[in-house]
This record gives sequence, structure tokens and C-alpha cells, in this order.
Amino acid sequence: MNVLKRNNVHVAGRGQQTLLFVNGFGCDQTIWRYILPALAEHYRLVLFDHVGAGLSDTTAYDPDKYASLQGYAQDVLEICEQLELRDVTLVGHSVGAMIGALAAIGAPERFRRLLLLCPSPCYLNEADYHGGFERADIENILAFMERDFVEWADSFAPLIMGNPDRPGLSAELIHSFCQNDPAIARRFARVTFLSDNRPDLARLHTPCLLVQCAEDLIAPLEVGDYLHRTIPAATLVTLPVSGHCPHVSAPRETLKALEAYMAA
Amino acid sequence: MNVLKRNNVHVAGRGQQTLLFVNGFGCDQTIWRYILPALAEHYRLVLFDHVGAGLSDTTAYDPDKYASLQGYAQDVLEICEQLELRDVTLVGHSVGAMIGALAAIGAPERFRRLLLLCPSPCYLNEADYHGGFERADIENILAFMERDFVEWADSFAPLIMGNPDRPGLSAELIHSFCQNDPAIARRFARVTFLSDNRPDLARLHTPCLLVQCAEDLIAPLEVGDYLHRTIPAATLVTLPVSGHCPHVSAPRETLKALEAYMAA
Repeated sequence: MNVLKRNNVHVAGRGQQTLLFVNGFGCDQTIWRYILPALAEHYRLVLFDHVGAGLSDTTAYDPDKYASLQGYAQDVLEICEQLELRDVTLVGHSVGAMIGALAAIGAPERFRRLLLLCPSPCYLNEADYHGGFERADIENILAFMERDFVEWADSFAPLIMGNPDRPGLSAELIHSFCQNDPAIARRFARVTFLSDNRPDLARLHTPCLLVQCAEDLIAPLEVGDYLHRTIPAATLVTLPVSGHCPHVSAPRETLKALEAYMAA
Repeated sequence: MNVLKRNNVHVAGRGQQTLLFVNGFGCDQTIWRYILPALAEHYRLVLFDHVGAGLSDTTAYDPDKYASLQGYAQDVLEICEQLELRDVTLVGHSVGAMIGALAAIGAPERFRRLLLLCPSPCYLNEADYHGGFERADIENILAFMERDFVEWADSFAPLIMGNPDRPGLSAELIHSFCQNDPAIARRFARVTFLSDNRPDLARLHTPCLLVQCAEDLIAPLEVGDYLHRTIPAATLVTLPVSGHCPHVSAPRETLKALEAYMAA
């Protein structure tokens, strides 16, 4: 098993400190490209693709292993081990944020801090918790994705990206979704949208920056508040922007938030 | 001098044969992402960024070295040397195609074949040669770029990308242009648009696939015909598509052309 090939690991940048990037559902490491050039001047960057996405080795997809986010977190830790990474700053987006959190819970000694963009531990509404979606909504979304992945991508990318005045951004996300192996993407979507990692959060002792967007249909403000209250060492920043992908739609504001926290 | 860091070299894919990708002006290696997953299953992929673009080391920019396309071709050869690449299939786009051709002229023993998307050896109209632009046009374009790089990107990306019915594609290219260090991009644009590499072509003995687009404002059909007549071992394929970036706007048709030629 060659971990670096399996996950298409790419190391770039010039610096002592390591930033490890974990993207969310339906994308690959190229989704980070708008914030990377500025970071490359001061940090070592480690990028990878989840199995089934980008240039990962799709033959390494194991439905049992990847039936929970733990399987994805295990890959993150294997990459850290392979590259002997220590004192890592992990940057995670969306479900990639929760995968990063699970990795940090599993091996806290590897991580210095987590920078989490639009994280959510649970997308479902439950008693006393507003995840943003009813279970029936999620089942409808997953059924739509099963029926017609491309049509689903066309419909959902604009909701995820926000910024309706900039349709080019959604077009880019649609393009990105349609790059995925649809069979693997459907399974990953199910794991993503039906996970409930709230019980894990109390065990997350790594310092976390939580970056939420003011208008985000996938991770509403209540979720940011919940995470802020629940994670022992969390700082919450709310960007005054629309959408669930600020690293794509608002790269300057996102960079500013990340750099300010790292400088503190 | 660490060549692999300087040019942010990234190796991926599973296969014996090596494909080396050389992108054109204003982009970086992520521009190839729509055609890579399919190729990663059968080939070793070598990707990099020109100095001044993407995650390259911009401090390595040397105005003298990069005052001609030979400087960029030298980087391609240094990457080949560093990775001990032999029997390489080089995939080049736009000015990256001509940089690849110069590399193959310089060290033919390294290259098996060149797959050139929308190549042009000279963008200027000259006696008996239709490059597509008058010198005054080019000077105006370069002056516009000097004046306001972002405005220039907004205006020119749609002309370069074609496909006016899919504005998301141009938006992606604008985004890509605006990632570049503007000072370096302006110099690279001048070198690109004012180069005349027609005299070099007779020395290019590596087999070449030339892929042109039926409606391309940057590399008109006459240029493809010229290259086809001039390069000793060239095959010309005309894709029935619009724009100068078929690897972005028509990835399936582009892949089909590349794979058919490689299978022959």
C-alpha cells in the first residue's frame, strides 16, 4: 500500500510549518488553489485527494472502510505518518473539517491546530439541535443524486456555492462534482450527510479556528454556535459572505481569517 | 537550486509511460484537471507550474532567462533531468506547446512524442503567414494588460475561452489569470505574443499530434495548417469545438483525440 500514491499526495511551498489541507465532498485538492499561492511563500503545504476523487487511486476504495468518516480520518493519519508530519496545522473544509477533527482526536500529538471552514458535526435537525436539514430532505437529496448525478450537481452546486450574482463559481463546482466517480461520490454523500459526530467533539482538545459564512445553506449559523460552545478550545469567526465555499468565493477574506489566527 | 520545488513539480498516476504537461499563459497545472483522472489510470503524470505561476517559487524568476521561450524550455528539460524522464509524451497547450517543442528540439532523446493543443509558432500576421493578429493589436493588448491586469483578464478570458453560452468557463479562466503575479504575467505575455519560433520548426523531428479547435481566436486554422506543413512528423486533428482551451471546455473530445493518437 503506497499511501502517497493512493491519496495523490502533493507537497509544495516554502516554510517550516506544515499546513495539511482536507477538502470536502465532491472536490479534490485543486479546490484550494485560490488561497494557496499566498500561503506557499511561508508554509509547507501538503495536499491530497480522498480515495475516489481527483487523481487518487480509485481501486483503493473499500466500501467498509469508507462507510464512516473514520476511514477518511485514518487516511489523514496515514499521510501524516508517511511524511512524518508533526505540529501540523490542518485546514479542513465542510466534511473535510470533521474528518480533520476525527484525525486530531485519534492522534492529538500530531496536530498543532485546526482551521475549519464551514464545519458541521451533523446536518440533520434533532431535538435541541438545528443542523439545517430534516431527515426527509436528506433522503430526497440522496435519492436525487442516485437518480441523476449530473442533474443533481447542476441543481445543488448553486445552493452550495451561494453568490447567485457570480454563476461562474457554481459552474466551477458543477465541473468539480462531475469529475468524481459517481458510484463512490454517492456513497461518500450518504456518509457525509447522515453522520452525527457531535458525541466526538468533547474529545477534541486541539485548538480550533471555526470559520463560518454568514449565509450558508449547508452549515447554518446555529451550527457554528453549537461547535463553538462544544469544542473545548475553539475560536469562531463569521465571514460576512455568502455560500459554503469561502476558499473559492471569498479567498481574500478567508486567507485573512486564517492568517490572523495563525499569527495570534 | 531545487528544480522540483522551483517549478512545484507533482507526480501522480499509475502507469509505465510518462505524460509531462506544459500549460500555457496565465494558468497553472490545475488547468489540466478535467482530463487527468482518466489518464491517471494508465499513465504516470508529471505536472508543474512555470516560474511566476501557481505554487512555483516566484523568487526564482529571472527576467533575462525568461526573456525568451528558451528559458521556459530549459526548465522543462531540467525537470526531465531531475526525474530522469525518458520516452516522454509531452502534452503542451498554447505557448506551452511551443515551449514543449523547443524542449524536444533541445533534447530529442528524451521525448517519444508531443501532443500539442492549439499550438502557434507566431501570433503575428507576416508576409505569407496568418498568425491572427496585427502587431498593433498585440501592442494594444499588452498595453491594456499593463494598464489594468484585472480588467484585461475580464475582457480577454471570454475571447480566449470561446463558448459564449457557458460563461462559467470564462469565469474560471479569469480567476486563473488573476492568480498570477501580475508583473511576471505581463512579461510572460510579451514573450508569448511577440515570439516567432517558425524558424525552429524544421528542427523538430519528434512525432507531433496537433490538436486545433475549429473556432479559436488565438490560433486560427491557418496556423494549424502551417504547422502541419512545416513540422516533419505531424498529424493534425481539428476538433469541432469553440475556444482556445479544449482541455477545459471540451475535455471528452480532447481526451479522445489524445488517446486515439497514443493508441496508434
